[in-house]
Amino acid sequence: MILTILHPGEMGVSVAAAAISSGHKVLWVSEGRSETTKKRASFHKLEDIKTLSNIRESDMVFSICPPQSAVKVAKAVAETGFEGLYMDANAGSPEKKHLIHKLLESNNIDFVDGGIIGPPANSEGSTRLYVSGERCDEIKAVFTDGFLSVLSLGDEVGKAASLKIAYGAWTKGASALILTVRAMAKNAGVEEDLLHEWGLSQPDAEAMTLISATLNSPKAWRFVSEMNEISETFALNGVPNVFWDAAAEVYERLKDFKNVPNEKVNIDLVLEKLIEPNEDI
Amino acid sequence: MILTILHPGEMGVSVAAAAISSGHKVLWVSEGRSETTKKRASFHKLEDIKTLSNIRESDMVFSICPPQSAVKVAKAVAETGFEGLYMDANAGSPEKKHLIHKLLESNNIDFVDGGIIGPPANSEGSTRLYVSGERCDEIKAVFTDGFLSVLSLGDEVGKAASLKIAYGAWTKGASALILTVRAMAKNAGVEEDLLHEWGLSQPDAEAMTLISATLNSPKAWRFVSEMNEISETFALNGVPNVFWDAAAEVYERLKDFKNVPNEKVNIDLVLEKLIEPNEDI
Repeated sequence: MILTILHPGEMGVSVAAAAISSGHKVLWVSEGRSETTKKRASFHKLEDIKTLSNIRESDMVFSICPPQSAVKVAKAVAETGFEGLYMDANAGSPEKKHLIHKLLESNNIDFVDGGIIGPPANSEGSTRLYVSGERCDEIKAVFTDGFLSVLSLGDEVGKAASLKIAYGAWTKGASALILTVRAMAKNAGVEEDLLHEWGLSQPDAEAMTLISATLNSPKAWRFVSEMNEISETFALNGVPNVFWDAAAEVYERLKDFKNVPNEKVNIDLVLEKLIEPNEDI
Repeated sequence: MILTILHPGEMGVSVAAAAISSGHKVLWVSEGRSETTKKRASFHKLEDIKTLSNIRESDMVFSICPPQSAVKVAKAVAETGFEGLYMDANAGSPEKKHLIHKLLESNNIDFVDGGIIGPPANSEGSTRLYVSGERCDEIKAVFTDGFLSVLSLGDEVGKAASLKIAYGAWTKGASALILTVRAMAKNAGVEEDLLHEWGLSQPDAEAMTLISATLNSPKAWRFVSEMNEISETFALNGVPNVFWDAAAEVYERLKDFKNVPNEKVNIDLVLEKLIEPNEDI
């Protein structure tokens, strides 16, 4: 099988690696991509087909990028004349998946909805790709080896997206919430008292603020659009949704930590960014 | 020492019990209170002084009630001519504490800010009363025995309130958040898939939804005003605050579970209440 992955970041190359170790050929498109991406793709033995017009020879295209680019990428693929199977595995809303599905369908491209849960698939059992849509079992059949587990949620486009949205709503929402709480306590002069009380009655809370600050701040810039997709999806489901408007604001305030190495992220700097007066609020 | 507690719910009587076992006389005011409150107060050997006008013989008055009644209770006390020490231990904002402080000060009543963290103080180490304000050490000195630990946060009114606000912002905010996530998953048809994924990667999450539903739904009616106080306080601290507007909406939707016994609260009923379309949103 010949697969193209658009555009392979850390998650994307780990999916590519699983496909390669399952015996498939994996292509990528270097046009417009950064040097970091080029090095990563070459290191993992993805084959560079340079421009998007060369994807027509692929059996499947996987789109794995931040959700705000998902529609643009799908449109560009539709314009190439590609007529294989397309999986969007971005953290987008079910509504966005339906939109992409329709857009591709009218160009004779079949669609599978995908949602990835876990870190890049670099160890056994760490990462699951959930898929839904009529041909989702074909995606599952690709991955016979490697570290990515693929689970089918049935025929309906939107199920994989809903699961990914719900999952991220808790993990990323709770991280934003607890960082905000510690920032408020710091500003009100009771941070040490809160940490002491947490030590007595919420034994995981302080560690959660440290982990959230360290692991999420460097990725905060791309969480903003994900939080917006979550908020819209929750509103459409008739449940309270503004938790994720607040979470989007938290990650917006942390966007300057983009790509700062984890070990250089300091909890105090993160909390100060959250306290910063912001005229948008 | 003679103390009056207004108005002794489960938390209040546990504070009274600690004061009684420390050798003090504890009074309460039955006028306008329910039969449940009367039975509880009588069982715990609080002395009924019937009407508020009789509190002038007290050395201290403790107000322990939902925050929306805090100002009203303080005003009523100020009108009696009481001139002892007044502690407000409601889950109100620092701003509300400052307001009550001023109101009482102009009536020759000294004020201590209190914040209670933990369940009613019925076992060793379960519950802490944080106090701040010039005479806060006198509150600490009351409790020489019993299950309530008293910790001083210094001279400044508002510190105890800030700590209580920050603490509740995490515990009650996170509970509201995770219930909303599960409600959305249920509505989107992926609840079982989410529980399965949580079982793999978020081992505490499902239990947290069950505990939140069982323990918090019967108290949701009085969490609404607490969430509003939290939201206002976070806004004044310059950090994202609409998390707690969403949490207030969650508890508002659960208010029909008021006083339903924990064992009769069913997770599915709770989730359905959260999904219910609500024109206010």
